[in-house]
Amino acid sequence: IYLSNKLQLTIIDLVMTFTDKTAHSLEVIFNPRSVAIVGATSKPNKQGYLYIKYLLNFGFNGKLYLVNLRGGEIMGIKVYPSLSDIPETVDYVISVIPAKRVPRLIQECTAKGVKVLHLYTAQLSETGIPERIQLEKHITALARQAGIRLLGPNCMGVYYPKNGMTFRYDSPKTQGEVAFISQSAGHAAEVMSRGKQRGLTFSKMVSYGNAADINETELFDYLGNDPETKIIIAYIEGIKSPDFPKVLRAVAKRKPVIILKAGRTEAGARAASTHTGSIAGSYVIWQGLMKQCRVISVTSIDELIDMAIAFSKLPLPKSKNVGVIGSGGGGSIMAADEFELHGLKTPPIPQETLKEIEALIGDDWMLIKNPIDTSVVIPAGWSLKEIKQIFLLLAEHPLYQILVADAGEWRPESPEDINFYRRLVGLLLEVRQSTKKPMAIVLRNADHSEEWKWRTFIEQRQRSIREGVAIFPTVARAARALGALVYYYLGNSV
Amino acid sequence: IYLSNKLQLTIIDLVMTFTDKTAHSLEVIFNPRSVAIVGATSKPNKQGYLYIKYLLNFGFNGKLYLVNLRGGEIMGIKVYPSLSDIPETVDYVISVIPAKRVPRLIQECTAKGVKVLHLYTAQLSETGIPERIQLEKHITALARQAGIRLLGPNCMGVYYPKNGMTFRYDSPKTQGEVAFISQSAGHAAEVMSRGKQRGLTFSKMVSYGNAADINETELFDYLGNDPETKIIIAYIEGIKSPDFPKVLRAVAKRKPVIILKAGRTEAGARAASTHTGSIAGSYVIWQGLMKQCRVISVTSIDELIDMAIAFSKLPLPKSKNVGVIGSGGGGSIMAADEFELHGLKTPPIPQETLKEIEALIGDDWMLIKNPIDTSVVIPAGWSLKEIKQIFLLLAEHPLYQILVADAGEWRPESPEDINFYRRLVGLLLEVRQSTKKPMAIVLRNADHSEEWKWRTFIEQRQRSIREGVAIFPTVARAARALGALVYYYLGNSV
Repeated sequence: IYLSNKLQLTIIDLVMTFTDKTAHSLEVIFNPRSVAIVGATSKPNKQGYLYIKYLLNFGFNGKLYLVNLRGGEIMGIKVYPSLSDIPETVDYVISVIPAKRVPRLIQECTAKGVKVLHLYTAQLSETGIPERIQLEKHITALARQAGIRLLGPNCMGVYYPKNGMTFRYDSPKTQGEVAFISQSAGHAAEVMSRGKQRGLTFSKMVSYGNAADINETELFDYLGNDPETKIIIAYIEGIKSPDFPKVLRAVAKRKPVIILKAGRTEAGARAASTHTGSIAGSYVIWQGLMKQCRVISVTSIDELIDMAIAFSKLPLPKSKNVGVIGSGGGGSIMAADEFELHGLKTPPIPQETLKEIEALIGDDWMLIKNPIDTSVVIPAGWSLKEIKQIFLLLAEHPLYQILVADAGEWRPESPEDINFYRRLVGLLLEVRQSTKKPMAIVLRNADHSEEWKWRTFIEQRQRSIREGVAIFPTVARAARALGALVYYYLGNSV
Repeated sequence: IYLSNKLQLTIIDLVMTFTDKTAHSLEVIFNPRSVAIVGATSKPNKQGYLYIKYLLNFGFNGKLYLVNLRGGEIMGIKVYPSLSDIPETVDYVISVIPAKRVPRLIQECTAKGVKVLHLYTAQLSETGIPERIQLEKHITALARQAGIRLLGPNCMGVYYPKNGMTFRYDSPKTQGEVAFISQSAGHAAEVMSRGKQRGLTFSKMVSYGNAADINETELFDYLGNDPETKIIIAYIEGIKSPDFPKVLRAVAKRKPVIILKAGRTEAGARAASTHTGSIAGSYVIWQGLMKQCRVISVTSIDELIDMAIAFSKLPLPKSKNVGVIGSGGGGSIMAADEFELHGLKTPPIPQETLKEIEALIGDDWMLIKNPIDTSVVIPAGWSLKEIKQIFLLLAEHPLYQILVADAGEWRPESPEDINFYRRLVGLLLEVRQSTKKPMAIVLRNADHSEEWKWRTFIEQRQRSIREGVAIFPTVARAARALGALVYYYLGNSV
């Protein structure tokens, strides 16, 4: 039988996926049929309680077992004195017991046929204490011997909305296309919480801590092949596998990758070694690798979220020319600066379009440029219909292939302004609905002490999120994210 | 009589202050005994109405007159058909009438003995239209001929809490030590509003627009000599006077100066020319000047506010060594990176101090480093008293001359956590009260959709502001501002 080249390649791909032990072996951390929490407790605020609460609230799809020597019941669930007392199979164990008791737990896991052991348990190699480093090595060796995959130690574990797995009280239920792997548990929580405020959803999230067994390289390899994941974002302190550059290069060809690397300085590297026992390595070499692989390199959580928003919510840009609906005079100058600094262009509005604008609003056409300064547009007293038509002339012009609108300058100054503000945000949403070009909307954050103002901002943000808008809190942050989008998809040459 | 060199210099300074005509001539824009609004209207949302409303609400100390051809009454105040109909003296006129009627107004001002004409009136040189540029020149010449100082055109004017002058609904009543001059009206509003959220107060603020007469150089010269102003911050699009470098050099020797310069790129410069008719000039040359004068150069409104907070609220640092109470594992690594990148150091905790910590909490001393990772401190189950003692050991150690504490990681996850969060913020405030070293506290912004969470953050922020704390929304922003403080006061060599 004759097979086309393409089909042959597809089959090879398929076979490789099924035979690639690495990729396969990680599937189990997302899809356990049953989870047992060892070290379950009824004391609120303790992690052995919070895991139960969060998994129940979130609606874990599989069976949940609790283990504690003391037995009894927590939240109406029977507590088994040990793993072996559980009558059914256990795929996945969450350990919240002290490190010294983990080797014993691994024996029980082996007897029980457990596939994954997630160690929330910490105070191992990250302490820098020789016997603790040794203990982590011992635990890892025991698990490998038994064929048990180890997640952690010193981590929060897995968030996978499709299977109802989580480690947080506020995890979005909706499945998204962004995967996040994080060596820091705090950063995992922060990205989930702050991302949620802007409508960011995730395919999978893994807080993987000290990476004694499952590490960044294996996770990248898995996510690169994961059909549920379209974009990969990562927080990394140190690299565990020498294969990382090779794997990253392959994965980054298939999917946008955004990495926040800590330990950029000597002081940061010293801190990293005592957080997850990581060796940060040279940041200069790291930056070279990022550039080679066309990975987007960021330096803060905010920037990481911005990039995830841009890459997951915006269609591909066709050029680097941005049409900007700006925010005030000074704001529009700074907007022009920011776009240019991030590799984008804000070309002037062509003469023919200005003529059309003149036909619409007469002599006031002289006030219109790119960025459109909205502090001029609004007091000029034009109707919302006219304003919308001006915005549409910009949005529809083929010169502009990226659109950014800033609702910041229209922030209401008193409760009487709320309705006008609502209508103007609505107008921007309509412009966005009318175009297939990537369009970002800048909505300032809701950090206000007046309640009416806070409510107005939250309301308009949630309205925009429901429509799937890519929202940024400042024009500068939108410019940086859009610059990265253009860099990734169009390169520097366009 | 023999005079010491120092005394001689002081006398020369004194004489120069009194004979410096420039500095004197600007005093009048802040202390008019009477203000007339020409173009007053009863239509809400129009600037000719808002000026009346804001001046009345804010409690302008002098007399307020309204002028409109139609006469009548607005908010219970008689409206005069023209300036000449006002029976008493008018020091200061706010013009909200169209540009073409301004030359006529200047004649009336001359007859009336007006000292300052503030032109909110716009659509002059910033339009780029030759006859409008000409009209602005004509207006300026007329005013100069008549000995009338011109503020603007195209600007919001003066905010001076001491005399009850303002152009905003939300101006702080308290007099501060920071002066802000801004070519953009929107930026003036933004700095006032956002600064207020963080307890920033001002000596004086001038939105000066196109700078046809009163320009950046004269304002700097005035503020450099102004005893009410300790720190000068500025938003500048273009420089009008060739004396600027000389004046800036002299002023920056006496007071910290922070400047946000727009038009850093070609696109930004193009936008600047159509906003206030400014010529942005080369940014490279600009940066050289900033460095020579030891001026802090910033690129966003947020950064401008951060610097104003640091310079106005913190005592002088004695070294660049920072003791950090960090926020989580990943957070404390990134904190170490940020401090190092901004020229500060985070040296490890000395052995003797670790011994003291060991005496306090036993084996857990191994978890303590600089930055102190608070995600370790809290679950360890130590009492608030123990936590405070650990913080104090760091705060009191002479190795650390700058302190930064991040309350971010303790953000409440449920309403039950609020009291614990309150106590922890209280603990940081106590540590701050106990030291004379500069101590910044990181309190995340209140950008949350849950009401209880928003309220908690606002409450703790306001509590901290009442105590005069320098608050930053992220560790990275605190690091940047503290780095600038050290750069200004200690130079690069410490």
